[in-house]
Amino acid sequence: MLRAHDIRYFLYNGGNDSADTSLKISQIAQTLGYELNVIGVPKTVDNDLPVTDTCPGFGSVAKYTAVSVLEASLDVASMCESSTKVFVMEVMGRHAGWIAAAAGLAGKRANDPPHIILFPEIPFEEEAFCARVKATVERVGYCTVVVSEGLKNKDGKFLAEAGSVDAFGHTQLGGVGPLIAQMVKSKLGYKYHWAVPDYLQRSARHLASKTDAEQAYAVGKAGVEYALAGKNAVMPVIKRVSNKPFKWKIVEAPITKIANIEKKLPPNYISKDGFGITAAARNYFEPLIRGEDTPPYDATSGLPKYAALKLKLLKKKLPAYPLTDK
Amino acid sequence: MLRAHDIRYFLYNGGNDSADTSLKISQIAQTLGYELNVIGVPKTVDNDLPVTDTCPGFGSVAKYTAVSVLEASLDVASMCESSTKVFVMEVMGRHAGWIAAAAGLAGKRANDPPHIILFPEIPFEEEAFCARVKATVERVGYCTVVVSEGLKNKDGKFLAEAGSVDAFGHTQLGGVGPLIAQMVKSKLGYKYHWAVPDYLQRSARHLASKTDAEQAYAVGKAGVEYALAGKNAVMPVIKRVSNKPFKWKIVEAPITKIANIEKKLPPNYISKDGFGITAAARNYFEPLIRGEDTPPYDATSGLPKYAALKLKLLKKKLPAYPLTDK
Repeated sequence: MLRAHDIRYFLYNGGNDSADTSLKISQIAQTLGYELNVIGVPKTVDNDLPVTDTCPGFGSVAKYTAVSVLEASLDVASMCESSTKVFVMEVMGRHAGWIAAAAGLAGKRANDPPHIILFPEIPFEEEAFCARVKATVERVGYCTVVVSEGLKNKDGKFLAEAGSVDAFGHTQLGGVGPLIAQMVKSKLGYKYHWAVPDYLQRSARHLASKTDAEQAYAVGKAGVEYALAGKNAVMPVIKRVSNKPFKWKIVEAPITKIANIEKKLPPNYISKDGFGITAAARNYFEPLIRGEDTPPYDATSGLPKYAALKLKLLKKKLPAYPLTDK
Repeated sequence: MLRAHDIRYFLYNGGNDSADTSLKISQIAQTLGYELNVIGVPKTVDNDLPVTDTCPGFGSVAKYTAVSVLEASLDVASMCESSTKVFVMEVMGRHAGWIAAAAGLAGKRANDPPHIILFPEIPFEEEAFCARVKATVERVGYCTVVVSEGLKNKDGKFLAEAGSVDAFGHTQLGGVGPLIAQMVKSKLGYKYHWAVPDYLQRSARHLASKTDAEQAYAVGKAGVEYALAGKNAVMPVIKRVSNKPFKWKIVEAPITKIANIEKKLPPNYISKDGFGITAAARNYFEPLIRGEDTPPYDATSGLPKYAALKLKLLKKKLPAYPLTDK
């Protein structure tokens, strides 16, 4: 297809699977002797690409998650004496608890929400969890729990599975939030509510982080520049230069060092009890959600104005390639 | 308690149940010959108080819901060819579909999301629903479904019940979103995602509607003025004066005309097929989500700055009254 249309630049943005695709296409082109400049561009709310300090998209989902936990907890705190005592919010993150950890930014002092974070990195233990919920409700009046969709038990099995797989063959998760909430009800008897923002968290452009928006633009711009400079099988990544003040720059990295390697949450980001984040985590996450990049709003409809690109399709030169829904 | 502390003004904001409480307290005070000025102040995301044009809180949850449907649908639209085809979002609304209807503001043209709204006012019919989902996916490529938590079947039973009751004795709902999504999967085989924003929708101060914030302030101010003027058993309500341009004012209404009466969605707000909203609905809802009332953000933490009132407690003059969790 690339040869039929004489396409010589291939920029592909995404996460781990997309980096792998970029690498494979670059290798196939080399094998076929077809001159092609393949540039990977980092973009994934999962924040699990190695080498780069962060992945564009993540800062905004992190901001959305922290703000949502803060807001919903104010709601729960206002009525906990006579109503809901436990609020459970499920966040994305199949194998790494980056988004769950970012929720921890909502609280700064002891007793601030979220009171419990359940990471995919820490095997879930029901008794320790329930004891912590009980102690929190008795001390604070209510308990906010953030749970990663990828929460696993001691045997490494997901607590909840929707029984479906995504385009890359991963098991589709969902439903661990309601499951945890139901556990709280049956074991402790507390009135609960649960939320699963699902796609809302990763599409909430209205609450984008300014740092994130700037970094997203910078990697895209660098990607085009790398392509025009004839580079191949590389990715522009973000390097944190300093934290106070927060400074970063774009540097070049080979895709071979990125594809198929999942960056886990560093162990020193998780508190010793396994239910919260450390100061080291806060130092890493905080600059990423800093600043607002509010979209323009339409004065009549009250909705944000999101641009839709006019995609001008080329005339096809090859017969259709059948897409199968794996 | 009021007598012990010589409290003569009682302002109570809330929805139907709170209006009922205000009325009862006013009646009891009268029976006891205790001079008390009881003022109800409208505030409920359910938007189901009669007399008033709208209830403060509703405009903001409406804005949040419409924006979230718009954003998540852009996400689904971008990947529907090879991934998720049906997105289901569950919204609040026990007996009236006000919030579900407001989601309809996200779409203006045919084929815009949300493609299907499931109202508590319209008994759910599985076959008609599945046929509509299938037709939408085949025509548009994907289908966004908004479902009210209070969706009922032909027998008037809630499709999903969490088996718990709230402080006022209402059955606690939740889970109809996942249920509908699972139905789509089993009947049609489409890959799905579902979201249940739960408290996030009603606490999303970061996305407050300016109209809503102004009306909330106005009814609170009027409530204090009514109390100081010696009024009793009344509520300041919002009267829409004109729609183009949108103008409103605060007028006085007796609580007897408000308490225990649920304002349902007018039948002419629901389209004939039962799956969408009409132009009349749009005329009503649109001004309510107009404008933004963005909170100030902290430059370091990236979080909104929400004030917490320093509640100065009086010294108790009576022994504690035991609260029971109904």
